[in-house]
Amino acid sequence: MQVYGDLHSGNCYKVKLVMNLLNIAHAWIHTDILNGDTHTTSFKLKNPNSKIPLLELDDGRCLSESNAIINYLADGSHLVPDDPFLRAQVQQWQFFEQYSHEPYIAVARYINKYLKLPAERVAEYQAKQEGGHKALAVMEQQLAGQPFIAGDSFTTADVSLYAYTHVADEGGFELAIYPAIEQWLARVAEQPGFITMQQTLSGHQV
Amino acid sequence: MQVYGDLHSGNCYKVKLVMNLLNIAHAWIHTDILNGDTHTTSFKLKNPNSKIPLLELDDGRCLSESNAIINYLADGSHLVPDDPFLRAQVQQWQFFEQYSHEPYIAVARYINKYLKLPAERVAEYQAKQEGGHKALAVMEQQLAGQPFIAGDSFTTADVSLYAYTHVADEGGFELAIYPAIEQWLARVAEQPGFITMQQTLSGHQV
Repeated sequence: MQVYGDLHSGNCYKVKLVMNLLNIAHAWIHTDILNGDTHTTSFKLKNPNSKIPLLELDDGRCLSESNAIINYLADGSHLVPDDPFLRAQVQQWQFFEQYSHEPYIAVARYINKYLKLPAERVAEYQAKQEGGHKALAVMEQQLAGQPFIAGDSFTTADVSLYAYTHVADEGGFELAIYPAIEQWLARVAEQPGFITMQQTLSGHQV
Repeated sequence: MQVYGDLHSGNCYKVKLVMNLLNIAHAWIHTDILNGDTHTTSFKLKNPNSKIPLLELDDGRCLSESNAIINYLADGSHLVPDDPFLRAQVQQWQFFEQYSHEPYIAVARYINKYLKLPAERVAEYQAKQEGGHKALAVMEQQLAGQPFIAGDSFTTADVSLYAYTHVADEGGFELAIYPAIEQWLARVAEQPGFITMQQTLSGHQV
């Protein structure tokens, strides 16, 4: 199978990380948003919403949305609980990630790290701080009582939240005030098959 | 089981609609965000993220995030496909809904319908129009080729997208330019057990 993505993106890193955790062979096709790669006619046939990451199966079927992709890849593995309620909680935390976490932390990081905090976006950057800290506080409370975000086991929900939490400092979020999150980040990094975002960028392959 | 929610909210309507489609007995506990009902100590014990809808099972376990709740309620029913790839596509469209659709269409509706478009939020309201139309155009393209959003069958992804699409006009989105969406709205409303948002507000019960 093929993945279209950019490994500077936390959403794309989620897919690469699950591929590595589960040792799934794949081709990675570097796709540059700023170069317009997701707005070509051929890409829009694969994803009309013009976003990465995008998974393309060998038979040509395509799947978008990072969390849908990783749940599909991990279906039946140890990364997805068998229990229906636990599986629902995994989804709960993934929807939390996309609605209450990513739009603040990932966007603040993008403005700061990649756009170099231009004057015209400082107000937006600052406005992202409150929502980001609110999401981190919710995570801190959850992780103070259990080792992983959806309970006792490492799941795709941890991958979803790890992606931008572990680089939250690049968006101006100091994690030292969240000790349970810091311990959880270390616990995620101990998982067999774990690969850092930096390793994926330097071409480390499954 | 109990649901905490406000039926003026499309996210809460999703849960009520699935309860009705599947004939699931439940108590509905009206929860008023503007009155601070989601910020009480007792509510935050159930959902630290202070959001509705919230599902509480009879044993006290709680689940938040509308799309996670409806997938849990519908697990094993005709509203969730058996095929793993189709199930992943259902999730794909639900993540699309929460990231690319709801933040534009639901927020524009809220500013217009409930806040009465105050002068200080006109610019924000107008800024939501482009993203909302982009989401509707993606849906239109998908629905031009198939009866339901994730294929041939009515699924929870249709419920997720129906909730705010069918009231998009209240956010300033004219649906007449999207004929496939209009036909799909009618198709959803023909499902056995369907209930309108207005019926839920007038106290129609399962």
